[in-house]
Amino acid sequence: MNKYIDLIESSLDNYLEIKYPEKIYEAMRYSVLGGGKRIRAMITLLTSEALGCNHNNTLPFACAIEMIHAYSLIHDDLPAMDDDDLRRGKPTNHKIFGEAMAILAGDALLNRAFEIMSNFCVKNSEPQFIKAMNVISKASGANGMIGGQVMDILSEGQEINAEILEYIYKNKTSALFKASFCSGAYVTNASAEIIEKFELMADYFGISFQIKDDLLDIHSTEEVLGKPINSDEKNDKATYIKIHGLEKAEKDYLEYSEKTLQILESLDLCDTELYRYIKNAFERTY
Amino acid sequence: MNKYIDLIESSLDNYLEIKYPEKIYEAMRYSVLGGGKRIRAMITLLTSEALGCNHNNTLPFACAIEMIHAYSLIHDDLPAMDDDDLRRGKPTNHKIFGEAMAILAGDALLNRAFEIMSNFCVKNSEPQFIKAMNVISKASGANGMIGGQVMDILSEGQEINAEILEYIYKNKTSALFKASFCSGAYVTNASAEIIEKFELMADYFGISFQIKDDLLDIHSTEEVLGKPINSDEKNDKATYIKIHGLEKAEKDYLEYSEKTLQILESLDLCDTELYRYIKNAFERTY
Repeated sequence: MNKYIDLIESSLDNYLEIKYPEKIYEAMRYSVLGGGKRIRAMITLLTSEALGCNHNNTLPFACAIEMIHAYSLIHDDLPAMDDDDLRRGKPTNHKIFGEAMAILAGDALLNRAFEIMSNFCVKNSEPQFIKAMNVISKASGANGMIGGQVMDILSEGQEINAEILEYIYKNKTSALFKASFCSGAYVTNASAEIIEKFELMADYFGISFQIKDDLLDIHSTEEVLGKPINSDEKNDKATYIKIHGLEKAEKDYLEYSEKTLQILESLDLCDTELYRYIKNAFERTY
Repeated sequence: MNKYIDLIESSLDNYLEIKYPEKIYEAMRYSVLGGGKRIRAMITLLTSEALGCNHNNTLPFACAIEMIHAYSLIHDDLPAMDDDDLRRGKPTNHKIFGEAMAILAGDALLNRAFEIMSNFCVKNSEPQFIKAMNVISKASGANGMIGGQVMDILSEGQEINAEILEYIYKNKTSALFKASFCSGAYVTNASAEIIEKFELMADYFGISFQIKDDLLDIHSTEEVLGKPINSDEKNDKATYIKIHGLEKAEKDYLEYSEKTLQILESLDLCDTELYRYIKNAFERTY
């Protein structure tokens, strides 16, 4: 998978070429180019590849999603939000650049994501590209990722039920995965039927990803994760494990990951890098 | 001009219809619908009207710019930035909703702006609408409004020269005015020649607006401005007056406002609401 990662990294590097004022670009680059598994960009790239589209038409959207993900992490880590000092084993953005610059770097990344996509759409105004941008804008807003973060913050230290936890997972995490799969499908001009299947699959993938994240927080180590473990308990955060118990969490993780793959199988997409990538992601031990 | 303001206000109200989670919509609405002169949206609307376009095709862009302006104010007012308690005579967003929600409300407004524009472009994929969105994305990013804010922050308490002050004015304030004029022109499918004239005019308008803002800070009252006066001196901010002196500031203000109107005259747009609006803005005493 290294050639895909390299392609994404070099595109991100180009898109974030340093200009004046340098300081803001340094702060943006610090969080975007400082590691990360590129899961969202990989999904977009591999989905469009599986459906027959070339990478040049997909990279603007894949990289835009990575930037939106990076901005959300910068803002989540701020003292007024989760107040985290460490991310991917390195000091968080505001620890290096200060709070003001971290806020602006987040803003600038969100803005740059839409600038990159609209630059591409000015040159390629076919409807499928505008739809790809649109699905990303819906996923990252107050009815998507931001809404999930809002409920996460409002729920801290509260007893929450399974319904609210599902809302948080669906929006804080799954929404952007859905945008990754669907923007990758949209750029190929996929049919409504295929888009619908990818939407459902993204829900399964998102929930299994989130349950795994909860499991990692108790089973992994700080060295492997690049951030402190047991942070959910420390921050009194509601998790799938806390609400449903460890046994059900492990059982549901397997069930949802199975369902994800079944949809790709039903689309006859087993012999694709996308299928192998998703399968491999599930098989990694925690 | 009230009918235009009403149109903008009711569109903003519709675009920010309260959904779940309500708290984030309340915070977004507090800053967008809580007053303001709507100068940017008015410019977009009246520019497109002057060039012969109907309001329905312009309102998504006009309202998007208002939301981008509102988000930038919310984030500028944060404790880590300008740390302001008062905006338009009311407590700032974070004073009411807390810092975390204010950061997220700003994020959500920036995102909503692009969602509204891309929603419109999905339904109306003519290139001029994508160009209107694109010009807004360029103006509000790290090479535009955010870049200006970065330099403003980095310059606080420093001796800065006329060149850096010009950069700050051009980007922090003029960039979004330029986007207002040019997006209003783009939606009418205006020629490159007309776009160029509006770009130049936006520069003149932006600098005269900013000089006036500096003049108001020393000549006006807290009641009229809705925020404390003499704040530039208190915050040790570089202003046009500080660098060029009061006399030159007043002279240049008149010169740039004259030049703004001359461009509209050269385009034979004197008998338009746009011309009357701009002229009236300059004639208001400070």
